[in-house]
Amino acid sequence: MFFKRVTVLGVGLIGASFALALKKRGLCGTITGFGRRASNLVKAKERGIIDSFDLDPGTASAGSDLVIFSLPASSFAETAKRIVGSLKEGAIVTDVGSMKGGLVYEMEEVLSHRVSFVGAHPIAGSEKSGIETADACLFEGQKCIITPTEKTDRTAMDVLVSLWQSLGAEVVTMSPEEHDKVLGAVSHFPHIIAYEMVNAIEEIDGSYLRYCGRGFRDSTRIASSSPELWRDICMFNRENLIHFLNVFIGRLEKVKAYIAKSDADSIELEFRNAKTLRDRLGQD
Amino acid sequence: MFFKRVTVLGVGLIGASFALALKKRGLCGTITGFGRRASNLVKAKERGIIDSFDLDPGTASAGSDLVIFSLPASSFAETAKRIVGSLKEGAIVTDVGSMKGGLVYEMEEVLSHRVSFVGAHPIAGSEKSGIETADACLFEGQKCIITPTEKTDRTAMDVLVSLWQSLGAEVVTMSPEEHDKVLGAVSHFPHIIAYEMVNAIEEIDGSYLRYCGRGFRDSTRIASSSPELWRDICMFNRENLIHFLNVFIGRLEKVKAYIAKSDADSIELEFRNAKTLRDRLGQD
Repeated sequence: MFFKRVTVLGVGLIGASFALALKKRGLCGTITGFGRRASNLVKAKERGIIDSFDLDPGTASAGSDLVIFSLPASSFAETAKRIVGSLKEGAIVTDVGSMKGGLVYEMEEVLSHRVSFVGAHPIAGSEKSGIETADACLFEGQKCIITPTEKTDRTAMDVLVSLWQSLGAEVVTMSPEEHDKVLGAVSHFPHIIAYEMVNAIEEIDGSYLRYCGRGFRDSTRIASSSPELWRDICMFNRENLIHFLNVFIGRLEKVKAYIAKSDADSIELEFRNAKTLRDRLGQD
Repeated sequence: MFFKRVTVLGVGLIGASFALALKKRGLCGTITGFGRRASNLVKAKERGIIDSFDLDPGTASAGSDLVIFSLPASSFAETAKRIVGSLKEGAIVTDVGSMKGGLVYEMEEVLSHRVSFVGAHPIAGSEKSGIETADACLFEGQKCIITPTEKTDRTAMDVLVSLWQSLGAEVVTMSPEEHDKVLGAVSHFPHIIAYEMVNAIEEIDGSYLRYCGRGFRDSTRIASSSPELWRDICMFNRENLIHFLNVFIGRLEKVKAYIAKSDADSIELEFRNAKTLRDRLGQD
């Protein structure tokens, strides 16, 4: 498996880490970057993350064997339309986005008459962003979810599975809809909670924040994530998130009732159950 | 400032770290430990954390210049009653508990006719427990809240302030009631949230837990904390916690409504406000 020419659309933390990981393992010839800010692309080229760049996504993608979308999901469809005419026959187009569902079908509709689109999501984000924190080993030991549909070209999918495995990821496949449920629960929902925990302390008394210890810092670390990205995710995964918030609010109401009636046994049972599950996940 | 004889009641993570910190700085002569489990005390003595131990708290505390409660708060009052008759005149009695409020007044009532009680709470916990993770530097750079009342002996309090400063802590004083509000907000409330986030994912679909990334792990790290300790804290800080849960549920309902009506601007505003506040806290 070798990609003579690769295009990374969006050279941020994930896009740049993907480029570095490919280069480190000798899986590609040259990498071309596309992005909105020329200054970032110049920096990425200086650092050897990409070999060249173009401010037009079509030109950047022309002739590439592998094109990866690591742009904000809100610009996927528009960018796909801009590149589709330039794509090389037989190219594989994929992404690294946190949202799948309808987006995968939209990408297929735009692209699949010319090339193979396969959705992918390496679970390796961070509250940080930008190429400064890019890391060739970012995906090692992490899960990468690949989301085939009925239309997905199986050969292209097999190539992509091998690629992510080569980068050290554990590949799991599931439908785009299942992906959005799973990630909604373990990633999207906790981001809303982290943001609102910080806002809740401010509402209670903002001066209290200066007394927070490591527990609060860890619990709310992801509240430093990009507000635009997580706004888009909330809009995208609306139904799942409303359901999960309802489940969570229901549980908080129950705990509140236990506290109100001093039901220590029920509280302990709740906490013990959570501790057992959490201990199993390990710490890193 | 030098304490010829010190008694540590409860040799767990905090008690053992306190003992090590005193020894490291040469602030004490000998340290006697008391606890429920002889095996733990034997281990603590073998590791040089304490110099001797006694399974009776009164005998352990007799003749000591400084007695520190690092036991579960639920046993404070009973243990205070068991030691009060043995305490040396002029001894300073203090604690390291996460709960203050009525407990401080209760301790004063039992102890203050003989010795000076001053409540203290170093904000340096961990989801871990036990002497294995004890650390002489645990309190360095951390806040320690001292909670004087109208009855507090000012000389004893000044000694305690100097002591914690010597251990590297930044000392802040506030009333026991204010302490419980502040810690309820930045520590007790986030523990409930972490436990219930784990339980919520189980309720949604427990199999999803295997897909959690670093964000979820960090957000729920404190759900590995002691269920008994946090059950007791919930019972103790009841009114504040019910208020905080109401504030939080109110905010989640608001966010849910924004998501339901696709109000992207309001969501972004929520998240941006939280990010600004959280970024100020730094990462540690």
